[in-house]
Formats: sequence, structure tokens, C-alpha cells
Amino acid sequence: MGEFELLAQVRERLPPAGPRVRVGMGDDAAVTVPGGATATSVDAIVDGVHFRREQASLRQIGRKALATALSDLAAMGAEPGEAYVVLGVPPDLDEDGCIELVDGIAALATETGMTLAGGDVTRALALTVTMTVVGHAPSPELLVTRAGARPGDVLMLTGEIGGAAAGLLLLERPELETAVGAETAARLRARQLEPRARLGAGRALARARAGAMIDLSDGLGGDARHLAEESGALMRIEVGALPLANGVAEIAAAAGRDPIQLALSGGEDYELLAALPTERVGEAAAAVGGGAEAGLAQIGEVVAGEGVEIRLPGGRLLETEGFDQLR
Amino acid sequence: MGEFELLAQVRERLPPAGPRVRVGMGDDAAVTVPGGATATSVDAIVDGVHFRREQASLRQIGRKALATALSDLAAMGAEPGEAYVVLGVPPDLDEDGCIELVDGIAALATETGMTLAGGDVTRALALTVTMTVVGHAPSPELLVTRAGARPGDVLMLTGEIGGAAAGLLLLERPELETAVGAETAARLRARQLEPRARLGAGRALARARAGAMIDLSDGLGGDARHLAEESGALMRIEVGALPLANGVAEIAAAAGRDPIQLALSGGEDYELLAALPTERVGEAAAAVGGGAEAGLAQIGEVVAGEGVEIRLPGGRLLETEGFDQLR
Repeated sequence: MGEFELLAQVRERLPPAGPRVRVGMGDDAAVTVPGGATATSVDAIVDGVHFRREQASLRQIGRKALATALSDLAAMGAEPGEAYVVLGVPPDLDEDGCIELVDGIAALATETGMTLAGGDVTRALALTVTMTVVGHAPSPELLVTRAGARPGDVLMLTGEIGGAAAGLLLLERPELETAVGAETAARLRARQLEPRARLGAGRALARARAGAMIDLSDGLGGDARHLAEESGALMRIEVGALPLANGVAEIAAAAGRDPIQLALSGGEDYELLAALPTERVGEAAAAVGGGAEAGLAQIGEVVAGEGVEIRLPGGRLLETEGFDQLR
Repeated sequence: MGEFELLAQVRERLPPAGPRVRVGMGDDAAVTVPGGATATSVDAIVDGVHFRREQASLRQIGRKALATALSDLAAMGAEPGEAYVVLGVPPDLDEDGCIELVDGIAALATETGMTLAGGDVTRALALTVTMTVVGHAPSPELLVTRAGARPGDVLMLTGEIGGAAAGLLLLERPELETAVGAETAARLRARQLEPRARLGAGRALARARAGAMIDLSDGLGGDARHLAEESGALMRIEVGALPLANGVAEIAAAAGRDPIQLALSGGEDYELLAALPTERVGEAAAAVGGGAEAGLAQIGEVVAGEGVEIRLPGGRLLETEGFDQLR
């Protein structure tokens, strides 16, 4: 398989280009006319680190690569724009495999309104998918950084957490499925293999003037610490308020793990954590809505200080060191 | 070494952000206010494919990763803007090594006026540096694609070719140095290890209204074919007009290789090939200048037809299949 032949095949399978794209894949560079402000993020997923080829289909791997990158755009409250993909192809992945992976990327790009505007293919020892995503906003002030959380704000969390970590446990130890049954197990595995970027919720929270926002890739504990560091404030999280995904408690118990620890440090839930002024909470909850995007829960507050404080029911504090993980 | 600690160290070593950057490295995404049009390109270099760690310093590897990506911006005639780097770190590369590599990137970013606006670090089996670069222009019409070469245009080439391929031969077979002497050998090795992106020449050629342009990463033969395919015209190249780098003929002879084949298919010279209306050649040559950027040579012409025609002195045609290479 040659790089050029593969890229030519890829070009035939792309969704139509968005209105900002003047030159798409196939030239030295893509040409866009952004207007306003752009949010740009890069993310890589590597076989053996972020996924295992024996546990996920190539289509799922492609989807996950784009979804995890899009999650960063969601956390900025940006509109979807353009994606650029670099495939690192190991010797045992043939052209059909590459196309299947690209089909996974293209399908999610179509669903989310992203244009696949550029790419590169290189040989690699392990399958690697590196994504650059560009999102847009009318002005830079409408994009939400990690730095604007203020004492008095409340901490809001989209959806449910712990599901991706429980799904990973299920993939590693299939016998755990008996603890929750087939349907719940499938839902938890999907949280791990087919994460969703909360793009709609992110834009809604940005419109509701969230002061700071981050997506949960490393786990609530570590990601809350990023908000704390960039905002110069203390994030106080109430464990009793955490919306654990259905089945997480049972999987944790069956695996001999603490469900709270799983939810706080498991990572990869790709939900959004936002700091909002109290008076904006109603507007934000209405805008985010329930249903597929699974609502918005108040899980704590921003207070003067630094770091992260995780309070158990009754007020005792949880040890918070060691929540960060290198992926 | 944790990802966060490394990124924090990296942030301390960055050149100051350019005027378009509102939020740089360290948030979910960088925020920029581009204005006009952007050119965006992605490029990856992998140990064992594009370089060998035993042949290049980590600083050189970092520089090369950015330089090869910037070469695509040069080929669009874009102004330097922002770079985003993803480091794939193998088990035997420690934090000091990562910092040395980033210092190489940062040094070239400073020299070229690029802002390092974002990044990601992941574990990998082989050292991999993936770069996304964004360049700018006042409007999309001022960026030069591969598609605008027209019959009657002349083909202009910046600098000299074959040097990077000869440098690679020297790295693989140090005994070849006797064919050219230490000084020339060092210059040829530098063409391979420390390529330069022709950013100034690219902007000059864009201002002179080059109809099409491409940078020589795969080799003149393969890259001319890209111009031919995207423009729908035949690229006729005169071998007698090719500006071979000093020492290429001697290294090729000593290695038992054909110097013309080396220059046409060796790749990685990162010179620019542009199609220009005849009446613009004088303006372009004056704008590109000589000296460090080493001038502009007329190497052929664009005629009606398709593909690439490589003419030897006397008019005989060279076989052009097999110039493409997968890297």
C-alpha cells in the first residue's frame, strides 16, 4: 500500500467540506477562512496505551480518536470545524484496515459536522491515530478556558461518570459481566470504546456563560485539579452528589475496587465539568437538557483556596493525591 | 515523568506567543484569532522511518519535525503562525531527552516566528513527533495550491537538490566522506538532519503570483507528479537544468548510485517547485534572491498533457515510474 493510494481512497470517502474550507485534503495544506476565533487541540491515541486492537474494532478506534479530540472542543464551547488526522500504520495493518478506521472517523465527522480537511500516513510500530481538531466561535470571549472559575461559582457536571472505567474493567475481565447483566455491560463497554464528545452541552454551557470548563479525560480528580490550578481557586466536590453511571457500583464491587475511586480517577468519561455563577444554573440546565445528553448535576462549588477537596457524606475529606495518570 | 510535569516544563521554555494567539499551551485547546485565511498541515516523523536516533541529536530531531511541517506552509506561501506538537515518547527517552527535543522545536519556532500553541504527550514504542502547523494569509486567494499550473508556465526550483539524499548516504556509510572531504560532507549531512523550510522564498513566489507550488519532500519526480495531477497538465523537466547540490555527483559515484536518480527520488530536500507565468520570472527571482536562500533556477515548463516528462540532455526521456516513496 502506498501513502498516495491510501490518501486518494480516503479522499473519496470524506463527508462534504464545511463552508469555511476552501482547499481540503490533498494539497500541501488545507485552506480555510475561519472568521472570528478558533479553538485548536491535538490528541493522540496509541495501541496498547489508549486502546487494544484485540478489544476494539478499527471503526471504533477511528471514532474514539476523533471523539476524544472533539471532547476538547466541547470543553471550549466551540462549534465543530475541521479535523486533520495522522495515521501511524503498523506492519500488520493492511489497506482495508486503514480504510475501516478512516470510515469510523468519517462517520463521526459526518454526525458532528466536522470536515476532514487534511492528513498524513506514516509507518509506525504500533497503530497510532493523531487528531488535530479546529473549532470555531464568533469571538474569543465566547470560548471557555480553564482559568475563569471564581469563588461562589457552582461546579456542574454533565452526564454520568465511572462508566468508561467500568467498561475497561469489563473488557479486561469479561467474567465481571454477571454482576450487571448483558445490557448494562454493553452500555458500559460502549462508554469505553465509543465515547461521545459533549459538543451540544459544551456550547450550551458556553452560552450560559460558564466561567471555566474542562472535559474529563484523566478523571474528575485530576481534571478538577487543572481547573483549580488555572483558575487559582479550590474545587470542592461532594462525593454524595456524583452521578455514577448505572452498573459502576456493581462492577467495582465485583472487581474489588472502590466505586468512588473508579469514578474519580478512572478517566475517559469525556463528560464536562463547568464552573457557573449560581444565577446561571437554571439557564444552563435548561439549555443542556436531559435525554441523550443526560442532564447536568451540581456536584460541588468553587471556594477561595487552591487544589481539590473531595468531601465524603458526613464531611470527611478524601485523600486526593495520585489521581493524575499518564496516558 | 508525568505528562503534566513535562508539559509544565515545556510551557516555561516557549518563545513568546504571536499576536493571533489568545490562549496558548495548557488549556483544553488553544484560542486564536486568525483573520483572513489559514493554511493548516499535519506531518509526523518516526524513529526508524524518517530519522534514526543514533544518527541525529534529539535537538536535531525536534528541529526537523518542525522544519518538515513548515515546508508545507512555505509551499502555500503562508506566513508562519502556530504549531501544535504531539510527542510519542518511547520507554528509553527520559524527561531530559524530551526537553532537549522540545528545545530544538522551540529554537526553530523562535527563528521562524512560530508560536508553539499546544501539545500532547503520549507513550509510544518508537519516538514519534507529530506536528500541526497553521500559517496565515490576508485572503485564501493569496495561498498557492498545487492545482494552478497552466501550459506555458515555467517550472522554477529554489536552492539545490540531491543534498539530503547524499547526506543520508553519508550517514549510512561514513566512509563515503573521502569522496568529498569533511566540509562538504558536513554540509550534506546537515541537509538531511537540519532541513530548512523555504518560508521566505515561498512568500516571495506567492507574491509573484505562482500558479502552483509544492515542496520537495518525496523527491522532485514524485512531487512534480502531484503538481501534474492536481493541475491537469504535463510537467516537463530538463535534467540538464537541475541544480544539484555540491558533492552530490561525487557521493553518488562513490556509492555506485546515479546522481540524477538520487536528486529526483531521494526526497527531503524541502526546496520549492513552482509554476510561474513567464513574465513573472524576473520578479520572482529578484524577490527570492540568492544568498542563504540560494536562488531560483528554471528547470522546465508546463505543457498540455498529463504526468511528468524528464528529459535528458539531447532530448531522450527518462523512465519516471517508481519515484514515489512511502515514508
